[in-house]
Amino acid sequence: MLVALDELRRLNRQALTLAGFQEDEIKPMLDILLYAQLRGNLQSIVQFAGPGMPKDPEAGEPRVIKETPLSALLDGNRNAGMVVMHRAMGLALEKAVAQGFGMVGTRNTCQATAAIGYYVRHLAVSGFIGLAFSGSGKKVAHFGSYQPIYGTNPLAVGLPTLEEPIVLDMATSALPFFKLVAASMLGQPLPAGVALDATGQDTTDPRAALSGALRSMDRSPKGSGLGLLVEALTGPLVGAAFANVGDTDHNWGNLILSINPELLVGLGEFQRQMTALREAVKSCSRLPGVKEIFLPGERSDQRAAIALQSGYLEIDGQLFRRFREKITGP
Amino acid sequence: MLVALDELRRLNRQALTLAGFQEDEIKPMLDILLYAQLRGNLQSIVQFAGPGMPKDPEAGEPRVIKETPLSALLDGNRNAGMVVMHRAMGLALEKAVAQGFGMVGTRNTCQATAAIGYYVRHLAVSGFIGLAFSGSGKKVAHFGSYQPIYGTNPLAVGLPTLEEPIVLDMATSALPFFKLVAASMLGQPLPAGVALDATGQDTTDPRAALSGALRSMDRSPKGSGLGLLVEALTGPLVGAAFANVGDTDHNWGNLILSINPELLVGLGEFQRQMTALREAVKSCSRLPGVKEIFLPGERSDQRAAIALQSGYLEIDGQLFRRFREKITGP
Repeated sequence: MLVALDELRRLNRQALTLAGFQEDEIKPMLDILLYAQLRGNLQSIVQFAGPGMPKDPEAGEPRVIKETPLSALLDGNRNAGMVVMHRAMGLALEKAVAQGFGMVGTRNTCQATAAIGYYVRHLAVSGFIGLAFSGSGKKVAHFGSYQPIYGTNPLAVGLPTLEEPIVLDMATSALPFFKLVAASMLGQPLPAGVALDATGQDTTDPRAALSGALRSMDRSPKGSGLGLLVEALTGPLVGAAFANVGDTDHNWGNLILSINPELLVGLGEFQRQMTALREAVKSCSRLPGVKEIFLPGERSDQRAAIALQSGYLEIDGQLFRRFREKITGP
Repeated sequence: MLVALDELRRLNRQALTLAGFQEDEIKPMLDILLYAQLRGNLQSIVQFAGPGMPKDPEAGEPRVIKETPLSALLDGNRNAGMVVMHRAMGLALEKAVAQGFGMVGTRNTCQATAAIGYYVRHLAVSGFIGLAFSGSGKKVAHFGSYQPIYGTNPLAVGLPTLEEPIVLDMATSALPFFKLVAASMLGQPLPAGVALDATGQDTTDPRAALSGALRSMDRSPKGSGLGLLVEALTGPLVGAAFANVGDTDHNWGNLILSINPELLVGLGEFQRQMTALREAVKSCSRLPGVKEIFLPGERSDQRAAIALQSGYLEIDGQLFRRFREKITGP
């Protein structure tokens, strides 16, 4: 169904208020949530429609527990992933402005960072190459196994151009976790080949998959390798839980890096050539039936632009009504 | 066939000498070539067996054309990719030792870097997280296209542990280029689904693929996204050619990063937890028929260890004989 953006914004705000967040937290969270929702990442709507996203009553202020000129380690102190990553993004940017490079790790959050493309896009708009990696609950099996050992482990990269940045934001799992939860909630089957049940059999039943595991993005050792990489950068490197080690339900980690292109060719030259790269890719010969070649994130950005222009976003009706009922009552 | 390592070393040395390299270049090159060959990466053998790898008569000393405390930009001056990347690796390490982070880009090489896992492994053994990206001739199409616009664009990451590092080294294309060339040389068909001919039809004919394009690693937008990322980091960011822009036959770029884990949790803690991560993955429940779960690079390292222990390496006989004949005559 077509949902008015005004209503979506209002419901997001109500949902966060009901969840116990304060105004200074709600402001960045709303921005991040809408960025994700406009791009078809409905993680937050599925979450609000289901178990909710209550603020941890024990949550305190995130605090820097280690700092160098190039880096910081941020203890999220059980605060929301979005709030903590927003802080981490700001710190990584400050350090890269001052030193050319900034790297910030976070630990002790257990709620989604929503869409890590948001954070690297902000860095890219500011003239920096941004990289982000996000840990979460364990739902993905390594190649050859059916035991969940990795999060869906997204990686995101933001690349400045003369125009809008190019933003690659991808789960290293075959399916984002929210799509699994949504399928279970709505009683819809999964695509073939993305999930295994608790005994290691292929399944398209989302409930069976929830007690089993997702496969990695390409069902090959390469996808598992990327999953392991993100697990290492968001677990061992930042002092968060990982695999089956530590409190994997409550101590998730994230990592964000900001790199100044001035360290190499310089920003202007990088932007110019990135625009040339974009144009070269866009104008490639197309396979039969292909109307347009898309760069990473481009279709999501188009979707967002159309929604912002029209004031309406297409969302699965059943899912949206559940979300709205959860917030405003039936 | 089983090839004695002594003979392989001797032939490598002869090949490099015939190609016109000097002793100070041959030493690192031999080390890198053997690292790759022992792991089943036969790029160099295919190259020597085919067109050879002659040193560019115009090649001069690589020189640093820009430097900051955290970074350097190295003009390869038409020297061999391996020689230049070896220099870049040393510089990235020096900077990371001094500052916690080092990033070195290279341009103006047009010969293979052999196996970029070599360089990040060296960084990881030295206690640093290493990342490397390598550009080359354009052979890979973006999702939805059949026009070659990316190199096979490998990425590699080296992660320190308490024992040997974990090394992920993967092409973002569906097939490494040397396997395509080897298949053409030996008249063998390609696996299905990895290549397109010049008109965009799927093909298993290596000759048709050589005038067409390879697909990206997972035949999906994610694989293309990773291809684009490596293209951006090894082209626009370092001032090398990319896509169809610049002298894509002669001006290839590379990028190597070295990160000190002391910027976050510290090396000892990172190594301990990386060993725990390795153990967690190794002991995952296995799917039916799976005898062992392998970490990235592990099977290659096992293969290398067996060869070093036995003194013999298994290489395709037809390929090896062509290589030997090219070096020593029929």
